[in-house]
Amino acid sequence: MTRSLLPVAALLALGSPVMAQEETAAPSPNQIVEEAAREEWVAIAPEDLLVMTLAPAADGTEREVVIQLMLAPFSQGWVENIRTLARAGWYDGITVNRVQDNYVVQWGDPNYDNPEAEGAAKPLPEGLRTMSEGDYVDSARVVESDKDTIVLRHPKHDLVDSYADSASFSEGWPIGIEIAEKGKVLRRWPVHCYGMVGVGRGYSPDTGSGAELYTVIGHAPRHLDRNIALVGRVVEGMEHLSSLPRGSGALGFYTAEEADKRTPILSVRVASDLPEGDPASSSEAVGQQTRPAFEFLSTESEAFARYADARANRRDPFFIHPAGGADICNIPVPVRRGAD
Amino acid sequence: MTRSLLPVAALLALGSPVMAQEETAAPSPNQIVEEAAREEWVAIAPEDLLVMTLAPAADGTEREVVIQLMLAPFSQGWVENIRTLARAGWYDGITVNRVQDNYVVQWGDPNYDNPEAEGAAKPLPEGLRTMSEGDYVDSARVVESDKDTIVLRHPKHDLVDSYADSASFSEGWPIGIEIAEKGKVLRRWPVHCYGMVGVGRGYSPDTGSGAELYTVIGHAPRHLDRNIALVGRVVEGMEHLSSLPRGSGALGFYTAEEADKRTPILSVRVASDLPEGDPASSSEAVGQQTRPAFEFLSTESEAFARYADARANRRDPFFIHPAGGADICNIPVPVRRGAD
Repeated sequence: MTRSLLPVAALLALGSPVMAQEETAAPSPNQIVEEAAREEWVAIAPEDLLVMTLAPAADGTEREVVIQLMLAPFSQGWVENIRTLARAGWYDGITVNRVQDNYVVQWGDPNYDNPEAEGAAKPLPEGLRTMSEGDYVDSARVVESDKDTIVLRHPKHDLVDSYADSASFSEGWPIGIEIAEKGKVLRRWPVHCYGMVGVGRGYSPDTGSGAELYTVIGHAPRHLDRNIALVGRVVEGMEHLSSLPRGSGALGFYTAEEADKRTPILSVRVASDLPEGDPASSSEAVGQQTRPAFEFLSTESEAFARYADARANRRDPFFIHPAGGADICNIPVPVRRGAD
Repeated sequence: MTRSLLPVAALLALGSPVMAQEETAAPSPNQIVEEAAREEWVAIAPEDLLVMTLAPAADGTEREVVIQLMLAPFSQGWVENIRTLARAGWYDGITVNRVQDNYVVQWGDPNYDNPEAEGAAKPLPEGLRTMSEGDYVDSARVVESDKDTIVLRHPKHDLVDSYADSASFSEGWPIGIEIAEKGKVLRRWPVHCYGMVGVGRGYSPDTGSGAELYTVIGHAPRHLDRNIALVGRVVEGMEHLSSLPRGSGALGFYTAEEADKRTPILSVRVASDLPEGDPASSSEAVGQQTRPAFEFLSTESEAFARYADARANRRDPFFIHPAGGADICNIPVPVRRGAD
C-alpha cells in the first residue's frame, strides 16, 4: 500500500520531480524544509500578524502568542473586525475563559454571555461588520479550474479525506474541497487543524463578531469546518495556550470559583502598528514591542510537495513501516521567523 | 455529501437501526452515550487498569492518571512487561522527561539514554519479555471474516481513512485495517489517537521494554502506527499530562537547565493490586489508594453505532453544515467511572 502526494498539475504526469525524489534516499520532512530555497518562502504581511501578550506565567516567564490572519476568500470580514478590535484596544484586559482538553482554548470578555458574570459586558467598538452563515458554509466557490495545489491521493480510492471530497493546501492554508461532476473543484474552505484560530459564536443566526476567539489544542475537530468562521492560526507561542490549566466547568469554561485561573491578555496588536526594530539593539527602550517577521513555506512550492510526501511516507531511520498516507492536519504548513 | 457509519453486518442492509435513526430528530453524541443501556457498557478488568500518581501540582492539586491497558492481540507482551515493572515498583520515582507540543508526553528514567544524565540508569527488573518489530508491524492477522465492527464509509469512495485501507473499532479500541482482495480483512492494528499510550523505543531493532511510555497530546500522529507498540490509553486525568509545561530541548525533552520541570511520578499500581473500598467510607485511612472502576461503551453496541454516526453527522442545534464524515480519532470511545 503506497500513496502519493502530488501537485494537481502532475497527477497524470509520470516522472514528475516528486516521483523522482521517491526513488532516491529521502531526507526527513524537517530536513526538506531546512533545505528549501530562499524563494520558496513567502513573507507574511505585518498587517496579517497579531501579537497577543499574555500576563507572565507564575514563574515569571513572558508569554507572547503570534497569530497569522487568513486572507480572503476563506476568512471573509471577520479578519477586518479583528484588526478593528485590536486597534480599538478592545482585547486589552480580556481573559482566557475556556480551556477544554483535546478541544479548544477560548479568550474574550469574561462577562460576555456568562450567567455568572460579575460585571457588565464590555461594549464593542463602532464599525464592526456583520457576517452571515453563508460566509463560512459556502466559503470560496471556484468556477474556473483549481490552482496548482497539493491533493492527497490514494491509489485505490482516488481522493482521501474523511470530511470532504478532498483536502488540499492553498496559499499556505489547509483546505477542504467539494468536487462537482467530472472532478471539477466546486467549493473550498479552510479546515480546523491544531493551532487554527476561529471566531466563537452562539446559536445561529449569530455568526460571531471576532471579539471571542479560540484556537484548537487537540485532535482536529473537523466537524466544526463550515460551521464556524476560521480566521487564522497560531504561528508562535502555541505552548502558552495549550499548556494552560483546563477549566472544570461545562465545555471547559473556568467556573466562578476558579476565576483566578483566567489568564489575562495584556494586549493584542496588529504587527504593522508596531515599530520596526532590532530586538538586539541596546538603544531600544526595555520592554518595548517591535514588529516581528514571519514567513511560511509556499504550499505551491516544490519543497512543500516533497515535504508533504515525506510526512506521508516517513523514510527516516526510526520508521519501519511508512504509512503511505497522511491526513491534511498531520502536514502542518512550516512557518518560521523571517528577516525583520 | 452524506456518509454513513454502519456496522459491517449492515453494510448491505437498508433500513438498519442506524439508517432509521437518521430519519428522526437525533440527540447529540453525548446524549446518546448517556442514554445507552446498562448492558451496552463493558467493565474494564482491574488487571487492565494502571493508576499513576504524579506529585501534586504547585498549587497543591492532586494528580492521578488512570490508564487502560490494551488486550491481545493488539498489544502483545509489552502489557505484561508494564505489569511486571509496576509490581516491581520500578516506575516509582521516575519522572516526566519530555513534553512536545502537539505530539507526546513521555515518562521514564531521566538517566536512560540521556547524554546529560547525572546518574546511572535504573536497572530493569527480571522477567521482562523481548518483543520483535513484527509484533507491532504485523499486529493481528485476520484469517476468517471480520467481527461486527463499525467501519467508516464514504458514498463515493467506499472506505475512508487517510492511513489505511479502512479504520474501525474493535472491542473498545480504534484500529486500522488492511484489506486484501475481495474486501476481506487481512490485518488489523491499533492506531495513535489522542490519549493513546505507547512504548518508547530507540532505533530498530530496539522495540522498547515498556519502561519508557508516552501518550499523545495533540493531533493524532498516525504515522507512528505500526512503528511503535501501543499498549493502552489514558481514561482519566489526561489533563494532568496534556497541560504540563513544554520542554525546550530537542523533541520536547526538558534540558538539564530545566530539570526542575520534570514532574515526579510517585507510584504506578495495577488496579487489581489495590484494595477494594468505598472512597466515601470514613473508616479508611486518609490518603490510602483504593481500586478504581471504569467501563467503556461497547464498540459493538447499537448505542456506539448511533454515537459514531452522530459524531460524523452533527445535528445539534449549533451545527449548520454536518460534515457527513469523521476520522477514527474524532470518535473517541466513551469511557466512564463504573460501579466499584
